[in-house]
Amino acid sequence: MEGEIRTDLALEVQERFTEDDVEVKGVVLKEDFCEDGRMRVTRVEILNEHGAEVMKKPVGTYITVEAAELFSGGEDGRRKVSEEVGRQLGLLCGDRIKRGDKGQCQVLVTGLGNREVTPDSLGPLVTDQLFVTRHLLMEYGEGFLNKHLEKSKDGEEVALSAVAPGVMGQTGMEAAEIIQGIVKRIKPDLVLVVDALAARSVERLNTTVQLTDTGICPGAGIGNNRQSLNEESIGCPVVAIGVPTVVDAVTIVRDSMEGLLKEQGYNRKEIGLFLKGVEGMRKVNTMFVTPKSIDEEIHQISRTISEAINYCFFDI
Amino acid sequence: MEGEIRTDLALEVQERFTEDDVEVKGVVLKEDFCEDGRMRVTRVEILNEHGAEVMKKPVGTYITVEAAELFSGGEDGRRKVSEEVGRQLGLLCGDRIKRGDKGQCQVLVTGLGNREVTPDSLGPLVTDQLFVTRHLLMEYGEGFLNKHLEKSKDGEEVALSAVAPGVMGQTGMEAAEIIQGIVKRIKPDLVLVVDALAARSVERLNTTVQLTDTGICPGAGIGNNRQSLNEESIGCPVVAIGVPTVVDAVTIVRDSMEGLLKEQGYNRKEIGLFLKGVEGMRKVNTMFVTPKSIDEEIHQISRTISEAINYCFFDI
Amino acid sequence: MEGEIRTDLALEVQERFTEDDVEVKGVVLKEDFCEDGRMRVTRVEILNEHGAEVMKKPVGTYITVEAAELFSGGEDGRRKVSEEVGRQLGLLCGDRIKRGDKGQCQVLVTGLGNREVTPDSLGPLVTDQLFVTRHLLMEYGEGFLNKHLEKSKDGEEVALSAVAPGVMGQTGMEAAEIIQGIVKRIKPDLVLVVDALAARSVERLNTTVQLTDTGICPGAGIGNNRQSLNEESIGCPVVAIGVPTVVDAVTIVRDSMEGLLKEQGYNRKEIGLFLKGVEGMRKVNTMFVTPKSIDEEIHQISRTISEAINYCFFDI
Amino acid sequence: MEGEIRTDLALEVQERFTEDDVEVKGVVLKEDFCEDGRMRVTRVEILNEHGAEVMKKPVGTYITVEAAELFSGGEDGRRKVSEEVGRQLGLLCGDRIKRGDKGQCQVLVTGLGNREVTPDSLGPLVTDQLFVTRHLLMEYGEGFLNKHLEKSKDGEEVALSAVAPGVMGQTGMEAAEIIQGIVKRIKPDLVLVVDALAARSVERLNTTVQLTDTGICPGAGIGNNRQSLNEESIGCPVVAIGVPTVVDAVTIVRDSMEGLLKEQGYNRKEIGLFLKGVEGMRKVNTMFVTPKSIDEEIHQISRTISEAINYCFFDI
Repeated sequence: MEGEIRTDLALEVQERFTEDDVEVKGVVLKEDFCEDGRMRVTRVEILNEHGAEVMKKPVGTYITVEAAELFSGGEDGRRKVSEEVGRQLGLLCGDRIKRGDKGQCQVLVTGLGNREVTPDSLGPLVTDQLFVTRHLLMEYGEGFLNKHLEKSKDGEEVALSAVAPGVMGQTGMEAAEIIQGIVKRIKPDLVLVVDALAARSVERLNTTVQLTDTGICPGAGIGNNRQSLNEESIGCPVVAIGVPTVVDAVTIVRDSMEGLLKEQGYNRKEIGLFLKGVEGMRKVNTMFVTPKSIDEEIHQISRTISEAINYCFFDI
Repeated sequence: MEGEIRTDLALEVQERFTEDDVEVKGVVLKEDFCEDGRMRVTRVEILNEHGAEVMKKPVGTYITVEAAELFSGGEDGRRKVSEEVGRQLGLLCGDRIKRGDKGQCQVLVTGLGNREVTPDSLGPLVTDQLFVTRHLLMEYGEGFLNKHLEKSKDGEEVALSAVAPGVMGQTGMEAAEIIQGIVKRIKPDLVLVVDALAARSVERLNTTVQLTDTGICPGAGIGNNRQSLNEESIGCPVVAIGVPTVVDAVTIVRDSMEGLLKEQGYNRKEIGLFLKGVEGMRKVNTMFVTPKSIDEEIHQISRTISEAINYCFFDI
Repeated sequence: MEGEIRTDLALEVQERFTEDDVEVKGVVLKEDFCEDGRMRVTRVEILNEHGAEVMKKPVGTYITVEAAELFSGGEDGRRKVSEEVGRQLGLLCGDRIKRGDKGQCQVLVTGLGNREVTPDSLGPLVTDQLFVTRHLLMEYGEGFLNKHLEKSKDGEEVALSAVAPGVMGQTGMEAAEIIQGIVKRIKPDLVLVVDALAARSVERLNTTVQLTDTGICPGAGIGNNRQSLNEESIGCPVVAIGVPTVVDAVTIVRDSMEGLLKEQGYNRKEIGLFLKGVEGMRKVNTMFVTPKSIDEEIHQISRTISEAINYCFFDI
Repeated sequence: MEGEIRTDLALEVQERFTEDDVEVKGVVLKEDFCEDGRMRVTRVEILNEHGAEVMKKPVGTYITVEAAELFSGGEDGRRKVSEEVGRQLGLLCGDRIKRGDKGQCQVLVTGLGNREVTPDSLGPLVTDQLFVTRHLLMEYGEGFLNKHLEKSKDGEEVALSAVAPGVMGQTGMEAAEIIQGIVKRIKPDLVLVVDALAARSVERLNTTVQLTDTGICPGAGIGNNRQSLNEESIGCPVVAIGVPTVVDAVTIVRDSMEGLLKEQGYNRKEIGLFLKGVEGMRKVNTMFVTPKSIDEEIHQISRTISEAINYCFFDI
C-alpha cells in the first residue's frame, strides 16, 4: 500500500498487513480476551530481522491492552485495567531483573515528554504519582518495605526511583543523555520508560496501553527522531509503557479517504494515487487530532499507568 | 455544495461562496492590508435577512484580522496585532456605548469557555489579564483613572469588570443565564464576549481574530447549541471577540478530500456523493484538530486579546 | 484581654473567653465526639444580640468538625470526615430548603476566593468537583436523577448549580454583586457558600470545617472587608462552609508570646502591654502562616468538602 | 546569642553579629548602592576557616542584591534588577569557566525544588524560561549563535542546558545524584544552581537575590539536610543563585519577641531565657511564613532570574 502510516503501536502495523491479507514471516500474533470480552490483550512477537524490517520495529515482544469500555465504566473499570497492565508488566519485566546482593532490585522509571503540552504530558504525570521507595530503603535499610507493606511480595524489595527528564527544546539535552547519566550514577537493574504515543486509529486514543521489552524511540510516531532508549544505548534492560494520545492529522485524513474510496469500489492503484496527494498536505503536518476531553483523559490514563506500576512492584 | 461546513468565521462562509463563484445578495465584503501586507483586515457586512439566511449568521458587521506572519514574528509583531485589534474594537464599540450620567461608561467583559480544556480556555485566560477598574472607580470616585493613567482618553473613563462564567457542564447554568443575572445587577453599557471559535482552515488557528457586533452563539462552530448572547437575550449591546483555536476533525477530512477530488477533475455531483460519506464518520465527531503547540499558543493569543481590550479602553 | 484576635471560627472566639474563665451570656456550647474520639463536633449557638456583640459574630448556629487525626489517616479517614460534614450540612440546611412546586429544590453553591492564590483557592476547587445537576433536570425533566441515582433520597431531587465568582481585584465586582445577580435570575431555594478561612491556631489549618447558617463575610478573618453574603443581602437562605487555611502572621506571634509570658508568671496587665507592641508590627501584616504542604493539603480538603456536599444532596 | 537563626543568606548571618557589635575575623563586608539608592549590592567574603566556622557557611564569596523598591516599580524596575544580577553573575562565573576546545563553554543550569509547592518552585520555573542552546550548537555547529544573536558576545558561545531534577520525595534520588550523573555524561564547564532560600527577615522575601561561588546545601535554611552541591561533590565549578521565598515561622516569632523585649529594656540573659521557650514550639515548626501574594511573586522573581541568566550568557 502506498504512503506511510505513522503509528507507534506494533499492533496497528500488524493490522495493516492483515487488512491486505498479507502474512508476515517472523511475526507471531496472539490475542486473549478477559473481563467478559471488555478487555483485549494482544501479544505481537517480532522474532527475527525479517520481521523487524517489514514491521519497521525492533525484534522483541509488544503487548497491547485495549479496554475502551472499561475506561468509560468509572473507577472500578479503570482499576481492572490497572491490574491487568500491572500483571503484564510483571511478566515482561520478569527475568529481566537480576536482583542485587541485598535481595533488592533497583527500578528507575523515566517519564518522557513535555509537561506543558497536554497530550505529551503522560510520562511526567505518571512519575508524579509513583510510590517512590529508593530513598527510604537507603535511609532505613533493607527490610523497611517488607515491614511496612504487609502485602509486599515475599522477600524481594524494589527500590523505585523516578525522573521526568523533560524534552530537548527545554533542556538542550536528549532525554537519552540525561537517562544515561543517571543510570551510570545510580545503577538500576531495570529502566522503565513511560511515554505518550501516536496511534493510527482515534478509537485507541487513551484506551490502549502498549508494553514492550524493546525500549522506545521517543517521538517516532509523530516524525521527530530522538535517540533511542534501549538496552544498547542505556546500558541496562529497558521496558517501555506507552499510551497513544494523538493521531497525526495527515493519518486521519488518509485513513478516512482510503475507507471511503474502498467503499466506493476503487481499486488499489487508484486509491494509491489519491493517498499520495494526502501526503503532500504540508500545513496539516503540524496538526494533531486529539479528543475534545484530552485534558481530563490524560489525568485518568496517567493514574491508570501509575497504579499499574505500583501494583506490579509493590502489590498496592 | 453538499454537506455543511462548520465554522464560526463569517469570512470563511463568505469564501465558500466565492470558491463556487456565487455572489450573495445582501452581503458586502471589503478588505484592507496593513503592515506591508502582513496583516489583512476584512469586513463582512450582512445587510439584510436574505444575506443572513444564506450566510447562516445574523445581520451585522464581522471584522476579521488575519496576521499569521506577525504572530510568528515575536513580541513586536504580536503587539502590532494587539493594537490593530484594539483599534477595530474601538470602532465597533463606538456609538454602541452611551455614557452614563457620570461621564463614565461601564463595560463588562465575559470570557466564555472551559478553563480546564486547553483550546477552549481563551475566554477565561483573557479575563485573567484585563485592566479591571470598576471597583477602583467605585471606591475612589470619578476622575481616579484620568489622574493615574496619563495617557487615558480625555474625560471619558471606563469602568471595566470581567467574569469567566464557566461552562454548563461545570455550573449547571447556561453562560447566558449567569451573564443575564450579572447584567441586570450591575447594568453595564456594553457587554464584550470573548470566546474560542472553530474555523474551517487550519491556517487560521491562533492567527485570526473576529470581531462582531451581532453577539455570539457559544459552541455553534463545533455543534453544541447554547443560548445566544446578543442584545436581545442580554438586554444590552453585545460585541464579540473570537479566535479560532480548533478545526472539527470531520471538517479537515472533508476539505482535504474535496481539494483532492477537484484536483483530479471530478465534477460537483461526484464530489458531493463522496462528501456525504464523510459526514457519516461518527467517531471522528468527538475529535478536533489543534496545533501541536496549542498550550503555548493559547497563552500568546490570550495576551494579544487582553492587550487589545486594554488598549481600546485605556490607551495602555 | 488587650488586642484583637483575628479568626473566622466562632469556636476559637468562644475558647478565648474560656481561657480567661469568662462566661458569655447568650452563647451556648455543646460538644460531641465520634470515631473513638478522633472527630470532635462542636456546636456554638449565638442566641441573642448580646451574644452576637461579645462574640463579634451574627446570631445563629456554628458547627465545627475537627478531625486532624482522621485527615492524616489516608483515604478512609478522610471519607469519614466527608460523611460527617455532609450529615451536619444536611441538618443545618434542613428546613431552610422549601421545596419548589416540582418536588425539586434548587441549590446554588458558590466557591469564593482566588483560584490563583493557593490557600485561597478552596472555594473554586470545591465547585470544580461537585455533582452538578441543574442542567440535567432542565433538559431531561423531573425524575431524571431518581432514575439514575439508585441511592438518591426518596422523591426529592436537588437541582445543583455551582459558580466561582472570583475576587474583586480580578472581576471589578464584589462577589456579593455577582451572586445577587445570579440568584435573582435562577432563583435557588438555598445558597451554599464555600470559602477559605483564617484561624487563630495552626493546629486547625486544613483539619477543621465550620458550617454556619449565618452566611459569611468574605475576608473578615484576614482584615479585608467585603460585603456580607447572608439572607438579607442575597435574598435567599445562605449556609456557609469554611475551612481555615491560613493564620495571620501577627496572630501567631501574638499567641506564642502570650503563652510564654503566662508561663513565666507575668500578670494580665504586663502581658497586655507586650501584646500592644505586637499589633504594631506593620510588615508582618501582609504575611500569613501556612503549612509547608499547603499545595497538597488544599486538594485533599477541597475533595473532602465537595464529597460532603455531594453526599448531603445526592447520597453519593 | 542563644538559639539558632535559620537563614540561607550570608548577609543575614553577618548582620546578626553586627547587631551585637561583634566583629568576625576572616569575614569582609563591602556594600554598594545603585539606581539612586534603590538597589543595594553587598559582598560578603568569607576568607578562611575561622570565618567559615563562625558564619556557619563555606569559605567563598556571597553577593546579595536587594531591590525591594525596584520590584514594586513594575516592568522597568524589574528589568534593572535582572541586568544587575546578570552582571554580578558574569563577574562571579568569570574565570570559573575555562573554554573548551571549540571556543564554546558549556553551562548546565539546575533548578532545584518542588514544582508543586509554590514557594519552592523557583528553580523549576527558572529552568522553564531559559534560552537553551546546547542542542542547537550540537545540531547546527559552531558559530550558529553568533550568526543568529547579533548582540552576542564576540566569539564566545555558550552551550546552555537546563534541568529541574525534582526533590527526593518525588524521585527517590538526591538532587546531587541526578546532577552528578548528568555532569559526568555531558561534561559542562560550569554548573549553575538555582534554588529558593529561607531568610530571617520577611522584608527580604522575593526582593533579594544571593549569588555565591560556594555551591549550595539544598534545604539547609529550613532544616532539611540534603547532600551539598559544590565543586567537590559535583566535579565541576558550581555557582548558586538563590532567592528567599519563605521565613521559618519559628524565626519570625523569635525575632518579633526579641525586638519587643529589647525595646522594653530586658537584658541579654533574660531575653535568652525567653527565646529558649520559642525554640520549643513544636507545631509551628512545620509552618512557614510567606507573602499573601506568593503565587504571583514567584512568577515575577523567576522571570527576573531567568532574564539575568539569559542576559549574562547571551546579552539578551
